[in-house]
This record gives sequence, C-alpha cells and structure tokens, in this order.
Amino acid sequence: MHKLYHFPLSPPCRKVRLVLAEKGLDVELIEERYWENRQDFLRMNPAGDVPVLRNPELVLPVATAICEYIEERHPEPPLLPKTVKARAEVRRLVGWFDEKFGREVSEPLLRERVIKKLSMTGQPDSQAVKSGVKAARFHLDYMNWLLERRKWLGGDAISLADFTAAAHLSCLDYISDVDWTRSEIVKEWYATVKSRPAFRSLLADQLPGFPAASHYSDLDF
Amino acid sequence: MHKLYHFPLSPPCRKVRLVLAEKGLDVELIEERYWENRQDFLRMNPAGDVPVLRNPELVLPVATAICEYIEERHPEPPLLPKTVKARAEVRRLVGWFDEKFGREVSEPLLRERVIKKLSMTGQPDSQAVKSGVKAARFHLDYMNWLLERRKWLGGDAISLADFTAAAHLSCLDYISDVDWTRSEIVKEWYATVKSRPAFRSLLADQLPGFPAASHYSDLDF
Repeated sequence: MHKLYHFPLSPPCRKVRLVLAEKGLDVELIEERYWENRQDFLRMNPAGDVPVLRNPELVLPVATAICEYIEERHPEPPLLPKTVKARAEVRRLVGWFDEKFGREVSEPLLRERVIKKLSMTGQPDSQAVKSGVKAARFHLDYMNWLLERRKWLGGDAISLADFTAAAHLSCLDYISDVDWTRSEIVKEWYATVKSRPAFRSLLADQLPGFPAASHYSDLDF
Repeated sequence: MHKLYHFPLSPPCRKVRLVLAEKGLDVELIEERYWENRQDFLRMNPAGDVPVLRNPELVLPVATAICEYIEERHPEPPLLPKTVKARAEVRRLVGWFDEKFGREVSEPLLRERVIKKLSMTGQPDSQAVKSGVKAARFHLDYMNWLLERRKWLGGDAISLADFTAAAHLSCLDYISDVDWTRSEIVKEWYATVKSRPAFRSLLADQLPGFPAASHYSDLDF
C-alpha cells in the first residue's frame, strides 16, 4: 500500500496521484501543509516539501524521482514510450512543465492566490499574478502548437508529458486561472485527459476556504 | 558528435558536461548567452534556456532529460545504480540539488553576482545574496550528514547525484562562495570528484570579467 503526503493544489503532487491511478495502484492520501514545517514530516523529508511517497520499500520525495520509480516498478501501462529518442522528448516536456511552466505560471499564481492566504504570509502581489497570467498565454500557445502536430503532447501515445501538463493546468483551473477560450485544441485535449478515471480523485478535491471554479469538475466544460 | 549549447557558470550545463565526459563522449561546446534571446537559439529551444544537446539523432533541452537520454544511449560506465530502489535514491538527490539547492543557493548567488552584471540588469540584491549564503550552510551540513553514512552521496558508488551536486558547488566555488571549512568530509568528497579527468574541462573555464577564485582549479586546495 502506498501513502502519499501531498497538498491538493500542488502540481507535482497531482502528477504523482495521476501516475499512481493510471497504474491502478491504491494510495492513501495524507494532506501535508508543508509550510508549517511539522517536525515528523521534516524527519521523513528534510527538504520539507511535497510530494513524499511512502511504502514498505522506501520513503521517496521529489516528483520526478517518484514517477521514474513507479514507472520502473510498475511498467504497465507504460507512461514513457519505448524508444530512447521518444522517451527523451517526453522527459523534455516533463521538464518544460515542471520547471518552466511551474516557475513562470503555476508557482506564482498558486503562491499569490492560495498559499499566502493559507499560511497567512501576506497579501497577493498583483504584479506577480499579472505576470503569471501573461506567461500562461505563451504556454497555452505552445501547447496548441504541439497539439496541432501530435495526438498527445509527447507524441502518438498518452504519456507522463500529458499528466504533468494536466496536473499543472488542473490546479490553475481549480482557481479559474485558465483561459480555455484561447485554444480549442488545448481545451479538447484537457477534456479528454480530465475524463479519464485517473482524474476522478483530483476532481473531487475541495480545499476549505477555496471553493473550486463551477466548471472545475464538469467533464463537458 | 555532440554539440552542447551551454553557459560556463550554469550548474545544469556543468552536470551534462560531466556526464558526457564520464561516458567518454566528445562534445563541442557552444557558449550561449541565453538571456540575449537569440532568435536561432529560440527556434531550437523555445524555452530559451541552457543546456541544449544537439546530435544527429535529436535536439534536446532540459538537463534531467539529457542525462537520462545519455544514460540510456550510453549505459557504460553506469551513472545510475542497478536496483530500482537505489536508482530512486539517486534521482531523489538529483532533484534535491537541481530543485532545492538550485532555488535556495546557486540560482540566487549566480544571478546576483554574475548574470545581473553580464546582462546589465541591475545591481546585486544583498538580501538575496545573504539568504543564499545562509542556505548554503544547511546544504553543506546535509551533505556532511549523508557522507558520514555513505561513501558517495547517492550510495556505494559514484553516481549522477555526485555529479549534480559537484556541478552546483563548482559554479559557486568559481566565485568563492563555498565555505570549505564547514565540513572536512564534504571538502574531501569534492576534492575526489574534482580530481577526476571528467572535471578538467570545467576547471579550465574562464569567464571574461570574472576571474576564477585562486584555489578553483587547484586539486589540493
């Protein structure tokens, strides 16, 4: 049995939840308000961040490491393609979303709109919000460009690239920060990913004090 | 033949250079001042950052993706351990250094002390420098803790974890931002990694306007 220390509106945590669910693995979710620096949690993960996967074999922080571990331990269904070249492209896009999209869009928007309020560490910085919203447009355009050329973000088959991107977008969609009118093709792609059984647990998330956008769990949004 | 678009004082670029050299692969280095947003470079990598590996098979940005690609294409000598569990631990530490050490220490220190001057985008923010220097202590203590228990950072054998950590530390050492008196065991570990042939190219780096610290290339510092 897997336990996952997570925070509901954390893109890397959501990515791990999607990967576990796609592999058909049961998980017990334990919500961790990591900014409170709970001592027992820090002993398990001195980095102090989520997600952390715990099972009888290991205690493992870092979403990238967790996803590679799950893929190696439970190869079916595969979330990385077969060829070395195609795997490189999927991992490039995982990096794109976790590093670039994270830094430019999801981290600032979630920090300013959610974490600051929950952790009572100040008012949202409207400049950071504005810059995150602006950067989101560039990223949606890039996804549109990819999806005009490919069935899925990373190539012919659904992969870790799609679940990484969907994990980020779903957090922003919860707080109504995705402009779905910008690209029909991206909206269709997201609707398809969102309708997978693996997504159900994410769509049921409710964060006290932060009601989800009305269309958030609607599969025909 | 591999080409690597890189910047000398970039930890992820240095990590890729170390991995290529450990695998015995020749590389042509092309310095890219990524903040200048050169159009030809953006066409190759719309993310606009370094490193980017280019060879007859592919054009590949993102250091994590590049290192996994090289490991799969050129498995010998291995830089990831054999067992799934041990690989997870190495990838956890790669994440620790690239994400946490990067965000808390090397990115702020290199941005404030080097990139701002080169890109003429303002004066160093002394608060950011102070906070980076302070965080570096915590990280050296964590490395000390690991190396009291293991021969190498990731376990019994040298691995991607050591090269990732050494890539970050070597950039900071270039600008004299590592307090080597803090841990004898970390200093010894770094001296051992630094004396490997793969490190030679890094020790020869010279950035105009930023002379390396006098001990930087000294193997008996």
